[in-house]
Amino acid sequence: MATSNGPVLLSFWVSPVSQRVRIALAEKGVKYEYKEEDLFNKSELLLKSNPVHKKVPVLIHNGKMICESLVIMEYIDEVWPGKVKILPSDPYQRAQARFWADFSNKVCECGHRLWQKSGEEQEAAKKDMIEKLKLIETELGDKKYFSGDVFGFIDIALVPFTSWFYTYETCANFSIEEVTPKIVAWAKRCLQRESVAKSLSEPGKVYEFVCFLKKRFGFE
Amino acid sequence: MATSNGPVLLSFWVSPVSQRVRIALAEKGVKYEYKEEDLFNKSELLLKSNPVHKKVPVLIHNGKMICESLVIMEYIDEVWPGKVKILPSDPYQRAQARFWADFSNKVCECGHRLWQKSGEEQEAAKKDMIEKLKLIETELGDKKYFSGDVFGFIDIALVPFTSWFYTYETCANFSIEEVTPKIVAWAKRCLQRESVAKSLSEPGKVYEFVCFLKKRFGFE
Repeated sequence: MATSNGPVLLSFWVSPVSQRVRIALAEKGVKYEYKEEDLFNKSELLLKSNPVHKKVPVLIHNGKMICESLVIMEYIDEVWPGKVKILPSDPYQRAQARFWADFSNKVCECGHRLWQKSGEEQEAAKKDMIEKLKLIETELGDKKYFSGDVFGFIDIALVPFTSWFYTYETCANFSIEEVTPKIVAWAKRCLQRESVAKSLSEPGKVYEFVCFLKKRFGFE
Repeated sequence: MATSNGPVLLSFWVSPVSQRVRIALAEKGVKYEYKEEDLFNKSELLLKSNPVHKKVPVLIHNGKMICESLVIMEYIDEVWPGKVKILPSDPYQRAQARFWADFSNKVCECGHRLWQKSGEEQEAAKKDMIEKLKLIETELGDKKYFSGDVFGFIDIALVPFTSWFYTYETCANFSIEEVTPKIVAWAKRCLQRESVAKSLSEPGKVYEFVCFLKKRFGFE
């Protein structure tokens, strides 16, 4: 995917927020250079590019650094308008897309608690996760994608977390398909898109990585 | 400010995130009906309008509910484009505006810890707040406003927290002017704008309210 003076993405393979950016770039057909970061030994480039958060993803474009995945997704939509629109054009629909994309960040926070904690704290995180997923499922309803027939901003923001579902389920002993079957069916539809299939991690590998983190950092 | 079929804002006087929306509407010259919420006895309208978070602010426009202050600010900018632009037009500048507005939410979270906690936890929150304010001051530099000469998105997102500075300082015994004098000078410049002066709470009243909350909910 490397190009000489094109965009560069600082990423980490299992990071859902980095995968959002990969999907957005793939949907737009933007060629870019992918740089895998070692999060246990962050590169000088990452520390310099995102001095505030020191986190992936960072998109480097025309010598400028754009940080925070949802911000990068809007940037991509504005810089490469093309035929594929990530955000809808109607202001209310755009507001809804931003609202639910922001809400999907809360799934991420909740997911961290779910695999890092145990006992009562983990049960609380599981309960919280189920409530959040149910709210999201209500928003999805019987639509193909969150904005209707067109794959877009909310889908891209949320779908990377579905490759963590197996980890959430295994760590906290529950079935997301039982709780929110429509979300699981939506995730399968999304995975039929090349942009998603090529960007998401394999659920088993995510779980292996989480087991490694637990061992290394003494969670549980 | 009431109009018959115009926008309605569900708000709470001391809420910085509600004040963001008030400033944005004032900058655009949009007439709207202001509805003060009782956060200890939330209205049916609020619960119905923002079922996910059950929080102010909510903007009701054309029968639709828009929630989350930064989302509402973008909505206002898109629906009432007019002469005043809240977000810059350049995609990179827009990304920067969104990044720092999101970062200003972290000042809010940190501020809560600062006045709700005591002892070591409060000291940690104070240290965190000082670090955040210094990062923000570096971004501001010697500019008049965050985007240069034009008052905009980051200014609106951040300035309501300055009416909480007196509370942060009094609760945690430090001087924000000593730590980040440029931010304090910027806040004074912002307060010269009618949109800001009319929307922000008086710092002494914020502190009184916080003392009331501490007593009622047993913080400290």
